[in-house]
Amino acid sequence: MTEIPASESTSGPTSGPATDVPVAFQDSGYRAAVVDLLGAIAYGEISAFERLAEDAKLSPTLADKLALGKMATIQFNHVEPLIARIADLGSEPMEAMAPFVKPFDAFHAKTAPSNWLEGLAKAYVGDGLASDFYREVAAFLDADTRNLIVTSLADSGHASFVVERVREAIAADGRVAGPLALWGRRLMGEALSQAQRVVAERDSLAALLAGGVDRPGLDLVALGRMFNRLTENHANRMAELGLAS
Amino acid sequence: MTEIPASESTSGPTSGPATDVPVAFQDSGYRAAVVDLLGAIAYGEISAFERLAEDAKLSPTLADKLALGKMATIQFNHVEPLIARIADLGSEPMEAMAPFVKPFDAFHAKTAPSNWLEGLAKAYVGDGLASDFYREVAAFLDADTRNLIVTSLADSGHASFVVERVREAIAADGRVAGPLALWGRRLMGEALSQAQRVVAERDSLAALLAGGVDRPGLDLVALGRMFNRLTENHANRMAELGLAS
Repeated sequence: MTEIPASESTSGPTSGPATDVPVAFQDSGYRAAVVDLLGAIAYGEISAFERLAEDAKLSPTLADKLALGKMATIQFNHVEPLIARIADLGSEPMEAMAPFVKPFDAFHAKTAPSNWLEGLAKAYVGDGLASDFYREVAAFLDADTRNLIVTSLADSGHASFVVERVREAIAADGRVAGPLALWGRRLMGEALSQAQRVVAERDSLAALLAGGVDRPGLDLVALGRMFNRLTENHANRMAELGLAS
Repeated sequence: MTEIPASESTSGPTSGPATDVPVAFQDSGYRAAVVDLLGAIAYGEISAFERLAEDAKLSPTLADKLALGKMATIQFNHVEPLIARIADLGSEPMEAMAPFVKPFDAFHAKTAPSNWLEGLAKAYVGDGLASDFYREVAAFLDADTRNLIVTSLADSGHASFVVERVREAIAADGRVAGPLALWGRRLMGEALSQAQRVVAERDSLAALLAGGVDRPGLDLVALGRMFNRLTENHANRMAELGLAS
């Protein structure tokens, strides 16, 4: 395992690899929180991979199966850099992911799609929501961690595939729109409920949002604004699919 | 779609991409057979991806799940170059894969592992058998197609992971070896039965093995030898796992 220098990163265009650790990590609480966050994102991507691969079975055509398989694979490919960084920070990646297995599995168990369109909508809406949330949190972190997270959330490039397929289905039979709109609301509700449980159980993550050494934080007003942005983006994605939110 | 030049490939280190099509393709039967073969391999990798992702659920630890997910992802990543080549040859990739959906799905349905060790053994033994078979066939094809196939079969690098895990399990409890040995025989039997069905239904593939313009072929004696090599390699893999074959 790589040893972590306690000094500030000598950042700049010619500086070394991402194993440099910036000043914020002098706060051991911050380090624990970042490990928690990276563990959550990594396991989130593993479980998204599993569910997308599972939902690919519902595909009406081979081309659809291929598209969903591709989304699953892209999610999975994000995992390795995240767990490498966790190891660089001196933690055991499997242990770092462990606390998040139950909430993510619970989310997926409670939102198992019963048909292809529900699976597609979940991939689009769920992935978008998770990305938005991690991006919001990443804004409060050191630059290396932020860059790693933003890269790991890079769009799978298949959003347009999902939008097209769902819009086609609604155009072909308008009756699918009502149940899908309800489904979107349920996804949002379950995601918030699991996220709340995670933050309540992991003090480190709550502290992360409050700020710390060399880092800004969020007060309750800012937290409320962040929540508004998340729900607004969710509504935009539902509208993009041609659905009420 | 790329247009296919009917002339021989101007091969050499400075020649163009793999869209050059060699003289063997002047034989339209050969072209059809290669499209069939690439379609079979591509769908085989998609279905292996699906099953590995499914079997990952049986993982006793998160590290095991990650290892199986990685194997699944590597299989899936091989699909794109194969379907790109099918398109270059003037065929529709989804149509090229379609005839192989049923036999591969039937194979997987009949060999759904009932526990983690069966899943591991299947990943190792099944993947090895498929690779051996495609490599044998590739030896009779034009160089571009052969290289594409051999690249797409590149070891997922996780064979040693499987061998280690299965050996550990047998060391911990010798009673698992008997059922696993039977399982290996069943995998081999089902694979041969489905392969036979495919070759019987796709004349092009049978013709491929018989040789053609500018290409050598296999007589019955050579075919028998090839079959012997396949079963011998299978036995070696079983022995590697610590199992009778």
